[in-house]
Amino acid sequence: MGLKTPEQYKSSLRDGRTVFYRGEKVPDVTAHPVIGLAVKHAALDYHMAEDPKYRDLAVVKEGGSEYSRYYLLPRNADDLRKRSDLIAAATREGETLVVLIKEIGTDALYALTMTADRMAKAGKTEYKDRVAKFYQHCRDNDLAVCVAQTDVKGDRSLGPTQQDHPDYYVRIVEERPDGIVVSGAKVHTSVAPNSHEIIVLPTRAMRAEDKAYAVAFAIPVNTPGVKLIASPHGGNKNNEFEHPITARHKMMETLTVFDNVFVPKERVFLQGEIDFAGLLALTFVRFHRFTAVSYKLPLLEMLAGAGFAAAEANGISKAAHVRDKLTHLAAYHTTVRGLIEHAASTCTIEEGIAVPNTLITNVAKYHFAHNYHQAVQIVQDLAGGLLVTAPAYEDLTSEATRGYVMKYMGGAKGFDAEKRLRLLNLISDLTSSDYGGYQEVLAVHAEGGFEAEKLQAYREYDFKTVSAYAKKVAGV
Amino acid sequence: MGLKTPEQYKSSLRDGRTVFYRGEKVPDVTAHPVIGLAVKHAALDYHMAEDPKYRDLAVVKEGGSEYSRYYLLPRNADDLRKRSDLIAAATREGETLVVLIKEIGTDALYALTMTADRMAKAGKTEYKDRVAKFYQHCRDNDLAVCVAQTDVKGDRSLGPTQQDHPDYYVRIVEERPDGIVVSGAKVHTSVAPNSHEIIVLPTRAMRAEDKAYAVAFAIPVNTPGVKLIASPHGGNKNNEFEHPITARHKMMETLTVFDNVFVPKERVFLQGEIDFAGLLALTFVRFHRFTAVSYKLPLLEMLAGAGFAAAEANGISKAAHVRDKLTHLAAYHTTVRGLIEHAASTCTIEEGIAVPNTLITNVAKYHFAHNYHQAVQIVQDLAGGLLVTAPAYEDLTSEATRGYVMKYMGGAKGFDAEKRLRLLNLISDLTSSDYGGYQEVLAVHAEGGFEAEKLQAYREYDFKTVSAYAKKVAGV
Amino acid sequence: MGLKTPEQYKSSLRDGRTVFYRGEKVPDVTAHPVIGLAVKHAALDYHMAEDPKYRDLAVVKEGGSEYSRYYLLPRNADDLRKRSDLIAAATREGETLVVLIKEIGTDALYALTMTADRMAKAGKTEYKDRVAKFYQHCRDNDLAVCVAQTDVKGDRSLGPTQQDHPDYYVRIVEERPDGIVVSGAKVHTSVAPNSHEIIVLPTRAMRAEDKAYAVAFAIPVNTPGVKLIASPHGGNKNNEFEHPITARHKMMETLTVFDNVFVPKERVFLQGEIDFAGLLALTFVRFHRFTAVSYKLPLLEMLAGAGFAAAEANGISKAAHVRDKLTHLAAYHTTVRGLIEHAASTCTIEEGIAVPNTLITNVAKYHFAHNYHQAVQIVQDLAGGLLVTAPAYEDLTSEATRGYVMKYMGGAKGFDAEKRLRLLNLISDLTSSDYGGYQEVLAVHAEGGFEAEKLQAYREYDFKTVSAYAKKVAGV
Amino acid sequence: MGLKTPEQYKSSLRDGRTVFYRGEKVPDVTAHPVIGLAVKHAALDYHMAEDPKYRDLAVVKEGGSEYSRYYLLPRNADDLRKRSDLIAAATREGETLVVLIKEIGTDALYALTMTADRMAKAGKTEYKDRVAKFYQHCRDNDLAVCVAQTDVKGDRSLGPTQQDHPDYYVRIVEERPDGIVVSGAKVHTSVAPNSHEIIVLPTRAMRAEDKAYAVAFAIPVNTPGVKLIASPHGGNKNNEFEHPITARHKMMETLTVFDNVFVPKERVFLQGEIDFAGLLALTFVRFHRFTAVSYKLPLLEMLAGAGFAAAEANGISKAAHVRDKLTHLAAYHTTVRGLIEHAASTCTIEEGIAVPNTLITNVAKYHFAHNYHQAVQIVQDLAGGLLVTAPAYEDLTSEATRGYVMKYMGGAKGFDAEKRLRLLNLISDLTSSDYGGYQEVLAVHAEGGFEAEKLQAYREYDFKTVSAYAKKVAGV
Repeated sequence: MGLKTPEQYKSSLRDGRTVFYRGEKVPDVTAHPVIGLAVKHAALDYHMAEDPKYRDLAVVKEGGSEYSRYYLLPRNADDLRKRSDLIAAATREGETLVVLIKEIGTDALYALTMTADRMAKAGKTEYKDRVAKFYQHCRDNDLAVCVAQTDVKGDRSLGPTQQDHPDYYVRIVEERPDGIVVSGAKVHTSVAPNSHEIIVLPTRAMRAEDKAYAVAFAIPVNTPGVKLIASPHGGNKNNEFEHPITARHKMMETLTVFDNVFVPKERVFLQGEIDFAGLLALTFVRFHRFTAVSYKLPLLEMLAGAGFAAAEANGISKAAHVRDKLTHLAAYHTTVRGLIEHAASTCTIEEGIAVPNTLITNVAKYHFAHNYHQAVQIVQDLAGGLLVTAPAYEDLTSEATRGYVMKYMGGAKGFDAEKRLRLLNLISDLTSSDYGGYQEVLAVHAEGGFEAEKLQAYREYDFKTVSAYAKKVAGV
Repeated sequence: MGLKTPEQYKSSLRDGRTVFYRGEKVPDVTAHPVIGLAVKHAALDYHMAEDPKYRDLAVVKEGGSEYSRYYLLPRNADDLRKRSDLIAAATREGETLVVLIKEIGTDALYALTMTADRMAKAGKTEYKDRVAKFYQHCRDNDLAVCVAQTDVKGDRSLGPTQQDHPDYYVRIVEERPDGIVVSGAKVHTSVAPNSHEIIVLPTRAMRAEDKAYAVAFAIPVNTPGVKLIASPHGGNKNNEFEHPITARHKMMETLTVFDNVFVPKERVFLQGEIDFAGLLALTFVRFHRFTAVSYKLPLLEMLAGAGFAAAEANGISKAAHVRDKLTHLAAYHTTVRGLIEHAASTCTIEEGIAVPNTLITNVAKYHFAHNYHQAVQIVQDLAGGLLVTAPAYEDLTSEATRGYVMKYMGGAKGFDAEKRLRLLNLISDLTSSDYGGYQEVLAVHAEGGFEAEKLQAYREYDFKTVSAYAKKVAGV
Repeated sequence: MGLKTPEQYKSSLRDGRTVFYRGEKVPDVTAHPVIGLAVKHAALDYHMAEDPKYRDLAVVKEGGSEYSRYYLLPRNADDLRKRSDLIAAATREGETLVVLIKEIGTDALYALTMTADRMAKAGKTEYKDRVAKFYQHCRDNDLAVCVAQTDVKGDRSLGPTQQDHPDYYVRIVEERPDGIVVSGAKVHTSVAPNSHEIIVLPTRAMRAEDKAYAVAFAIPVNTPGVKLIASPHGGNKNNEFEHPITARHKMMETLTVFDNVFVPKERVFLQGEIDFAGLLALTFVRFHRFTAVSYKLPLLEMLAGAGFAAAEANGISKAAHVRDKLTHLAAYHTTVRGLIEHAASTCTIEEGIAVPNTLITNVAKYHFAHNYHQAVQIVQDLAGGLLVTAPAYEDLTSEATRGYVMKYMGGAKGFDAEKRLRLLNLISDLTSSDYGGYQEVLAVHAEGGFEAEKLQAYREYDFKTVSAYAKKVAGV
Repeated sequence: MGLKTPEQYKSSLRDGRTVFYRGEKVPDVTAHPVIGLAVKHAALDYHMAEDPKYRDLAVVKEGGSEYSRYYLLPRNADDLRKRSDLIAAATREGETLVVLIKEIGTDALYALTMTADRMAKAGKTEYKDRVAKFYQHCRDNDLAVCVAQTDVKGDRSLGPTQQDHPDYYVRIVEERPDGIVVSGAKVHTSVAPNSHEIIVLPTRAMRAEDKAYAVAFAIPVNTPGVKLIASPHGGNKNNEFEHPITARHKMMETLTVFDNVFVPKERVFLQGEIDFAGLLALTFVRFHRFTAVSYKLPLLEMLAGAGFAAAEANGISKAAHVRDKLTHLAAYHTTVRGLIEHAASTCTIEEGIAVPNTLITNVAKYHFAHNYHQAVQIVQDLAGGLLVTAPAYEDLTSEATRGYVMKYMGGAKGFDAEKRLRLLNLISDLTSSDYGGYQEVLAVHAEGGFEAEKLQAYREYDFKTVSAYAKKVAGV
């Protein structure tokens, strides 16, 4: 018990789990050319806990024991701020790619803790203790935990029971005295292949007929019947010169199939209580959007920073339109950062837990998501067409071509061809490649899409007070 | 000495000041049909100090004496937050129109205090005491103070000395042992006709040849040679039904002429120190943009609130596109409010004074200003064409027409014709009238225009750190 | 019979019509201080027909007779182009305000003609001849014709029969052998007080239960029971210096009440044929949005032109951000103009009549409407705060102030104070005043609001072909 | 002489040309795994000429001979419209990727023809005949011709002679009686590895000191000293299921080095005439932006079509926000298409050649470029997160996973898992992958970036007329 080392983390993933990559079962995720990179990336979390530079931020001491700060239940604004800082710091180490192996799992654990508390108050007392024990298990074993929430959904205009197939939302297919059996599948499960545990949450509020779908639980990734089908998007780009980010960092998403999986009772956290399915889903999201905006900050720093550096390298940093565009990037970053910091500062304490200001968090997410593509456009504009037409790494090393490339790819003073190409390749990797597309799609869809953020913001905003003000002034 | 009553405020304005309205000298500003309304509006400030609801917010007790909170030099984030709250509360009382008779003057006083401190440290010791005494004078007499900063400028591509006329920027025309004589004119001087004192600040940094233009001072409005030429924009709309805001509230701007005005030495705060002209101008703006965003909040509340109420009155509040538009208004308001609150929370302490976070303040202002017209568009969209085609107040009272109007102008349940028209008239007054245009132009130009905000944001943003991050990841 | 002179037009309006302004019946619309200005503005149409500069464009010769080009049924692209040019030329004469007294009426006449043709083909033969006769009557008498289409609607989420009051949509209250009796009211009826005839069209498609609401007809404005309640918005601004546009030009909108109005049979064009109500409404809009975009062109020319001139006057035309903003205005104008010209060129011929390309017309309108407020923002930005803080006309003429104003309001070379103020006042009148608000609301709501344009564009766009292309490439 | 077959095209590329890919010289471009795909893609042009479906559009008969329509000098609007249609049709065959092997070359040939004509009129008579002969050579041999225009530029804030290295712009290093020797390099040269000829144009206007840089010429790709260093961006994605577009289509860009290349006199088209360098560069762009917008149309069709199909597949096509987003895509496509068609219709005839309306062409390009990223955002929004998290092709074929994938990836009625994934993979390939980034960067930079389009639009727009209008109305 206690903090895991990076090596312990890696070796603990060799546990017989069922992961498929391009149709083949992966015998050892740590040794796989693509998933292995994701493991290495995720291990950043364990490295940071050992790194003196991050130790105070990454590790909490309580009594005689130490545990990862992610596992600290936030009690006040400062806890939230430190959590946000840690998430940002880890993503900065990940060179714009979030680590996520504890971030998302603890968001779910907070939500389960709060919901179990509410259920206990409503007379459903069995879950509170189960959740607490699972929480301690994860914390004390310093586990990597992923969350499977988004059901495959089939026809999105239909509810769980109206689908062609009853398994389009994960459901309970059998209730036994010692547990439940579940079937169905979830999509977009990030970091599943390199996590220890999977927490399963409902994706939406449920109606009376959806009782079998009101289910939440947690199981080890290697539980029989759990099949992870990994997405090949992005593949591996093992050329650090051309792909400085993605040659070193990777996150995996899976189609996560539950093929008649048995979940023991002590790991079941919701079993048919339809009134709490929506609350649990929503509470998770209240924490998770705060996490999301926190881990977007290094990405926005990078857009502003890379845009600025590219302008320098190209010799255009004095042009008025360039300053205008850089200011836009600066304002974008500052707005998102300012709002998320403010969301922490103005948190509410519910069931003893500090919840980030939900309205402001959603507005921060909305601002981030709606403006991301435009920011990409600006950075691409500042960097130039070489983003997609520059020579290869091998052109810089081959005798036949090196001379030409070094001569002709040079930029403004201080930026020889290699430096300039490295910068442009960074931007290409970040914005004009598979990873660029990945980040765009994440901006639009991760942690709930545009419409989800807008709905939440609409609900949280105090229209009552402001419309009363309007009516008063109108004399109505 | 001490707090003024509203009546004392009004009577104190009958002091022989030279104010022109439509070419005629106004004998008594408090009795003028248009300026008198501005006086009444400004008196809100003195009313609030007497109102138990606002007393704690509006008045500070220090030792045995009391003074207006505006005159409190902010020492920490909480002082800034309360100041912001007070400014917003006063504007809310002003039904979206800022009161401003102390807000702007104290912004200038803070800037003068800080700049005089810096000048003293640089060996120019005479100003510090002068500023302090003037500060006490204003505070102890509970004065209304306006600020004249923007010079008329002539050809804006030219500096002060390059203009066709040397008076296109206010300048010292004579230096005497007992003071200076100044000439020139300032534009956009808000609340000048109903203030006690005018503070004059330079509008920009000055170069060596601009010595005569590096000048700051304060004088009573009724000083000989000071001529205020009031703008007629908006005029008076004395129909509360059709113009619920502007029939009750008004702010005056003037072309403020200094025709060989003598300023006694103790009221001179900058006299040729070109190195401090830019600093003074900028320091004022650092406080004033914070004030500006604070007083915009009730306007944004009103847009969201009136949009929501109009949607209800028209029976469209359930439509998906309407919710989308309302969410946009909510996010707009929340973003600006969140940022300005955060700017207070993350203030810096300089020369012992709490300065709102300059980067965040400018980004808040930028966000407000760039999105205002679109918010207006949305509210006009939700309200409908009756904003500019509705019947008149007299159509509701005339026997011949009242029946038709009451019958046909009715809206959704709970909104009879009168109520609905009152709401729509509020929105018309706010967005589709002289006052609507006034607010749009203010959004674009007041407290420095778009380019000024952008320049400031560009300078304050930490491009160095973020571009170092980009270079590190790029391996440069 | 034949073309009317401006004087004949004016005198023909003294016909006992019932028009209310601010609750009082107007004895003679041509002599009223506000409505009289609208009459004078509308007379531009008759002046143009006499003006050698416009005669070829404004008047059509057919056989031995001449009539206004508005009354030419368009048979090909060139007819549409000339019509568009005429509408734009008249609005240019109206200094950005559309004349509309024949534009809108002929849009309705085209739609009635086409719909009656379709009805005849479907066996309802009586209307075709009635419409043709009414058409000839209007053309041969050179009449001014307004269109009342938008019902008051009450709760917009409810249909005609679900409202609190059955008259919230205009309906037939009695069917007689010689005609029908109608009741109800329409809003936003432009140019009604100075038209000869009112054409009434249904506002939407009707369902089976809405039979009484499926009604279209035309009657003289002075028909008993027709009551026009004029909107006071904008009032009269009779100061040409401060309000160069609105001191000379005015359009009136009314609440148009039908209080048990008898319509003789030969003037009834739809009487319960619910299947044709929607078609008629839509066909009108197909022509009317083309008219709308045509008359917006001078407004967009003015925004670009005034923005450019203001930049010159202020001495900022060389600044990079200014060029960028001017380019935006130029692109905005060019896009809208290019699309509407293209809509004429790619018209379809239906029932022998040239109908502007509906998809492109709606997209042009959408582009115009969505970007109008932003264009206003840019022009206000270029012009400066004097839009709302400049001195009055009387300050330029009064001895006491003239010297100061002439001295200090001067701008860049070639722009003395008077010239600069005239330019800024033009922009203030256009964008930052009652008229500015009027134009903004028109942009959003006139000729169907945002959602109407979008719906039409969605329906007209060929999603079938493009999605087949996508599926083919996808191999589906 | 006459039309080439696809096979003749391919074999003609085995001519000893010097092309490097990842540092290695490519012995046969048609056999290379990546460049070979580009050859196959380019061969579409020759296939279309043989395809009865396209023959009339693709081939022109003149006298007894036939040649590719691209080589027809446009004489009127109809020629431009057909050219635009052909470009769009070819790109549609290329499944959103332009073919370009004749499009760009003929743009340059038109520009050379017009410029040589102007030079002849100015007394420089030698070029006209040379250009005409080269034109015939290309046309009669049905050649693929690329254009190298953008110099590497070094520090973009400096002119050609101010750079660290004199070769940062291509220049004449020696003038001989029989020709010239040139050195330097161009970037972003599209289709160079699979073209027959390279036309070199100056990238900008030149000043007196830039005489050596005022150079234009054409040479075969296999000329000694010409070295093409191909960009590896995108590589090859040979999985048609996951990459339906890029597994079948590819375009290559090169860094095109001229290492002391001798150009015979008859192939030199500009040699030191600095006054014509800017004109030539600009004239090329006037044609090439028209080409550019023409070939973007299939891309915009695809965005709208794929967005629509994805909405169907996901079962969300009835949601209000989805319709709104689809309407936006439709309006975007329609605006760009309408404008470019209108640019053809309103062409000017200069030197006997039809030039597309330059203002409208630039505004069309500006509209396309500024809104592209937002359109991508919408399509990604409609498609969902599976764009970057879907299973692999092999997961559909492997026994172990196929059952799960087929079961869980199903969508709305009519879209089983395979169909849905094919559609989503199309969108992923198009928007969220290397190719997605490529298209984004092209939108921003190809055929001149944002600032180039804006500058051109600013210059072409008639500010004089519109500001005269403003001044007239203002009474100035």
